[in-house]
This record gives sequence, structure tokens and C-alpha cells, in this order.
Amino acid sequence: MPQDHAYAVGIDLGGTNLKVALVEREGGVAERVSLPTGADRGADHVLDRIAEGVDAVLTAHGERVHLLGIGIGAPGAVSLDRTTVNEPPNFVGWESVHLPDALGPRFEAHGIALDGPVIVENDANVAGLGSAFYGAGRPFRSFIMVTLGTGVGGAIIVNDRLFRGSTGAAGEIGHMSIDYEGPYDRAGVAGAIEAYLGQRFLSHHARYQLLARETHLHQTAGRDLCDVTPERLHHAAVAGDPAAREVLAWAGHKLGVLLGSVVSLLDIRKVVVGGGVSQAAEYLLDPARETIKRFVMPPMLEGVEIVRETSGNDVALLGAARLAFEHQEDFG
Amino acid sequence: MPQDHAYAVGIDLGGTNLKVALVEREGGVAERVSLPTGADRGADHVLDRIAEGVDAVLTAHGERVHLLGIGIGAPGAVSLDRTTVNEPPNFVGWESVHLPDALGPRFEAHGIALDGPVIVENDANVAGLGSAFYGAGRPFRSFIMVTLGTGVGGAIIVNDRLFRGSTGAAGEIGHMSIDYEGPYDRAGVAGAIEAYLGQRFLSHHARYQLLARETHLHQTAGRDLCDVTPERLHHAAVAGDPAAREVLAWAGHKLGVLLGSVVSLLDIRKVVVGGGVSQAAEYLLDPARETIKRFVMPPMLEGVEIVRETSGNDVALLGAARLAFEHQEDFG
Repeated sequence: MPQDHAYAVGIDLGGTNLKVALVEREGGVAERVSLPTGADRGADHVLDRIAEGVDAVLTAHGERVHLLGIGIGAPGAVSLDRTTVNEPPNFVGWESVHLPDALGPRFEAHGIALDGPVIVENDANVAGLGSAFYGAGRPFRSFIMVTLGTGVGGAIIVNDRLFRGSTGAAGEIGHMSIDYEGPYDRAGVAGAIEAYLGQRFLSHHARYQLLARETHLHQTAGRDLCDVTPERLHHAAVAGDPAAREVLAWAGHKLGVLLGSVVSLLDIRKVVVGGGVSQAAEYLLDPARETIKRFVMPPMLEGVEIVRETSGNDVALLGAARLAFEHQEDFG
Repeated sequence: MPQDHAYAVGIDLGGTNLKVALVEREGGVAERVSLPTGADRGADHVLDRIAEGVDAVLTAHGERVHLLGIGIGAPGAVSLDRTTVNEPPNFVGWESVHLPDALGPRFEAHGIALDGPVIVENDANVAGLGSAFYGAGRPFRSFIMVTLGTGVGGAIIVNDRLFRGSTGAAGEIGHMSIDYEGPYDRAGVAGAIEAYLGQRFLSHHARYQLLARETHLHQTAGRDLCDVTPERLHHAAVAGDPAAREVLAWAGHKLGVLLGSVVSLLDIRKVVVGGGVSQAAEYLLDPARETIKRFVMPPMLEGVEIVRETSGNDVALLGAARLAFEHQEDFG
């Protein structure tokens, strides 16, 4: 039963860390390693690291496996044919890299036998795919994935497949506007949800909303609140700090507004929220759940649900491996 | 060559008028009639009118045709299986009607031989389908259709098919918010685009923006501007009235904001705008074209295009007939 022992490698190519996992289709992560990406040292360095990472998980596993392919979740723009990553943010000297061509000789040099393709996909999309098959999205055939991190990533899953749009860039929820006169995000879009919920933006808003108040956060983030990270906000909220709870509710309200519009447009009523900020689960998501009710047109409210992705980092690795399994299922 | 002489009936079920066309797959509209819907006289009355309309176009055509099916564009919520219309606005005593069951016996009574299904679809979706095959959407495989009328309707066409969502209600662009503290639309959504561009809302905004000014519109809409219809706004703009042009530019700006978000989410970069208000083409759409550039994230700007649907009412009839042709192509 070869189906039972199908393996793929999933890679989460982050700006700081490169995570590599050997994934068994049914059993999940079999081996994993994490290496510093060295994104500031140029494309060749990063590509060498990727090959080393793959070699490391295979070596750790010991027994020889039949490798169906390698899936990679990468930041930045990924080509429609899923081969090429263009100018990933914070990667120095990268420009445009065709990953199968660049990695092939490197895998060969390590003696890695690959019986399938190297497939790359946008990291937010990979998180969605991972959630659909291994995470909180499993009960839903179609859902919206929102990843709260440095930015706000998104993916659209329709009938267990990624909806990719005309060029593979669909799902850019972070740059959708909820207020045409609102604050600018990094892409220059006014009122984009990233300008409220992206990590630096959220910290910035929190700082200005809290500076004049005596709050629990002053103890952890300093008197001038320069280090209000989303994590600290969350901890302060859990510790009962009303100001921190207010800021997270403010952010959750914005998220609910946006998700209401997305539900109305797509008639996809399930939302999975993952990523760092989503740890502040109840303080952020409960207000989002209240707000969305007022931003979805009433006949479409039935079944609307916002759930939290709790599988953490593994979802990205499993989703990346899923790219290879999916390819094998589609093309045999 | 039976393909060349395939016929279907397309029906545009409006609150005021019921339009029925006999459509030849390649040749377009062969016959058409328009009847008052009598929506205030109950469902039975409307259903009788539909059967009479179909009988009328077949009779007008004279020669017997092989009828592949009947497609109906209807306001209100249409069931996922495309049989049932629920509570269409302004239809008295309608509630929920299964159209194939309700129309079957009526067609029989008229001696209408139907070699295919009765299929109903939301009117905004039908406009999108019509545009895709017979209108301004023909050059695009995927596009967003926006219909500016009493409300703001929308449809999502992906690879020449309707994207229908989980319950068939996808495309409710009109209820997407561009300002979470903005004016309420009819569904109670704050800042929904309908609350700017829906006919009554646009008239209302125009009235308040123009009341204090001496404008061309006072001549046509009365001293108190109680009758600022979108049509009059358009005529005043064409006649050179700067105030009318300003109001339409204001509305176009809002449309551009919304479409920017939709493009970012779906990576579908073509937009077709139809319906009454869109007649104010350059005064409304040029500002929308300018604004969308600032609301789509820059890497996704390439290929973004907003075009006007100029085929008018026929698009709805042709799109409705297309429902039947599509069914025949899919299921033989």
C-alpha cells in the first residue's frame, strides 16, 4: 500500500528561520529541522541552506523514503506556475529565483532522490492549505484563512483547493480597505486591515492609545511603551489589564468589519484565523465575532463562524508538504 | 448541425417589467417581448405572466424550435440548486417558489414543449454571465461584474463560470463596506458601497451636496432637488454642470476604493460595470479608474481595467438563456 507510506518534504521559508519537515501523508511530521535562513547573505546561501535542510531531515529519518515532492511556502510573489519567487521582502540579492532549477543540482549534490516536483506557493496560501488538511479548517470545505503576523496574510480555500486568481496572487486580505480615509499600510493602501492589525501597526496604535494611561503594559514594555508587542498586549489582557483588552477589542472590531465584507463577496462563511496575534484569541476574536454580524448582510449570517488555528507552525510545514501530495493526487 | 440551431428562452424577471427573449445560441436574441410583471398581484399572477411571455416569443417566432431550456434571472435569494426564489423584494405574496414545479404545468397548458430544465439564478449573476458570453466581458476569462441600479449588484466570473459560493449567494459586492463608520445601506451595513451608489442613496447624497449651490440640476430636478435621479445627474454632467460632475466623481471614487479591495482579494483584475448609473460613464468610471490605482497593492496593478457594459438590457436576457446553454453543454 504505497499510499500509506507516501512522503513529501514541506519547507517554511521565513525571513529569519528556515523550517524543513519530512511529512508522511497520513502520519504528519516525521522529522523536522530549523536553520537560520541567512536571508541577508544572498540567494545562493539560502538555496544551499534549503538543500542542507532537506538532507538533514532525510538523514535523521534514517530509512530510505519514496519522496513524492517538495513543497515550499515562501514570502513574496510566487509565479502562477508555482516555480518562481520574486523579491521576497527582507531577502537580500534574491530578485527572481526559479526554485526547481536552482535546487535541482543542489539536491543532486546531496544525493537526494526526488520522485516528483519542487512546488512553491505563497506562505499565506500554504497556511490555508495546511489548515484545510491538518488544522482548524478540516471541518470546512471552503473557508477564508487569515494569518496575523508582521503583515496580514490571507488565503481562499474553495472545496479544499486554493483559489489562486489570475496570477496566483489571490487572497491579499491584508491590503483590503475598511476605511478609505484610514491609515496607510506598507503598500500605501489607505485603511487596509494590515494598517490596524499588522504587528508594527497594532503596536503603534496600542502605544498611542495607552500612553496617557497607567496600564499593566508599562511594567513589561517600559514607561514609554516602545515595546508593546502583540504578545505583551495579549499577556496584559490575560492578566486582566482593561486597557490591553480595549486595544485588542478595537483591533478585533476592525477584523470583523473586513471579514463581513469578505463573507458578503464570496459567500464563504467560515473563517480560520492563525498567526501570532491570534494567540490573543478571546480578546481579539470575540469582538470580531460580534462585529461581523453587523457587516454581513442578514440573509448570509447563517453559519458564519470565526475559529482559531491552534496547530501553530506545523500547519505551514504540513501545508507545504500538501502541495506535493496534491500534485501527486492530481497527476499521479 | 444541431449546435447551430440551439434555442433557449431567457427571462429577466424585474419588479416592474418581465422581459422574455427567444435566444439562438450563436445568433443571439431572435424574438423578445416585454410585459408588466404585476409583482403586486401575487406569485400566481407573475407565474402566469411568465408562461404567457414564453408562449408569446415562441408564437412570434413561428417555426417550431428545439428548446434546450429556460433560464430566469430573478431578484432576491436563489437556492443553491437554482430552482427556488425566496422573497424577491417588492414581490407581494411570493415567499418561496420552486420555479420548475410552478411553471411546468403552466407551460404544458400553453402546449410549450421543453427539452431541458428551468434554471433560475440571481439577476446580478445573470448579468455577469451575459457579459461574459455576449457583452463587454467577452475578452476576459475572469472578471468582476458590478451592476449599478436600485442597489449595487455583483457577480464573480472565474474561467467563464459563475463563482457561486457556499449557498449560491456569492457576489454581494453592494454590501461590502468601504468605511466602517459610513452610512448604512438597506441591509444595515455601515459604509456599504450601496449606501453611496445605490440609486436612492446617490440621489440623496447629490441632493445634500448640491442644495446650497446654483446648478444645472435645479432646472430639471426642481428647486428643492427632490428628483435628482442618476439619469439627471448624468445629463447635467454631460451638459457641463461642474456640480453634477463632482458628485459623480465622488461616487466613482467610492467605487474605485471598493474595487481595489476586491482585486486585492481575488486577483481578478478586470471589472465590467453595467446598469443604469454606469451610463454616466466617464464622469463615474474615470474617477474610479484613478482611485483603484491607490487601493490595489502595487504588484497587482498590472492589467487592472474597468470597462463599461454597453449591451444594456439584452445582456440580462442573453445571460439568462446562457444558463440553459451551459447546462446543455455540461450535461448533454
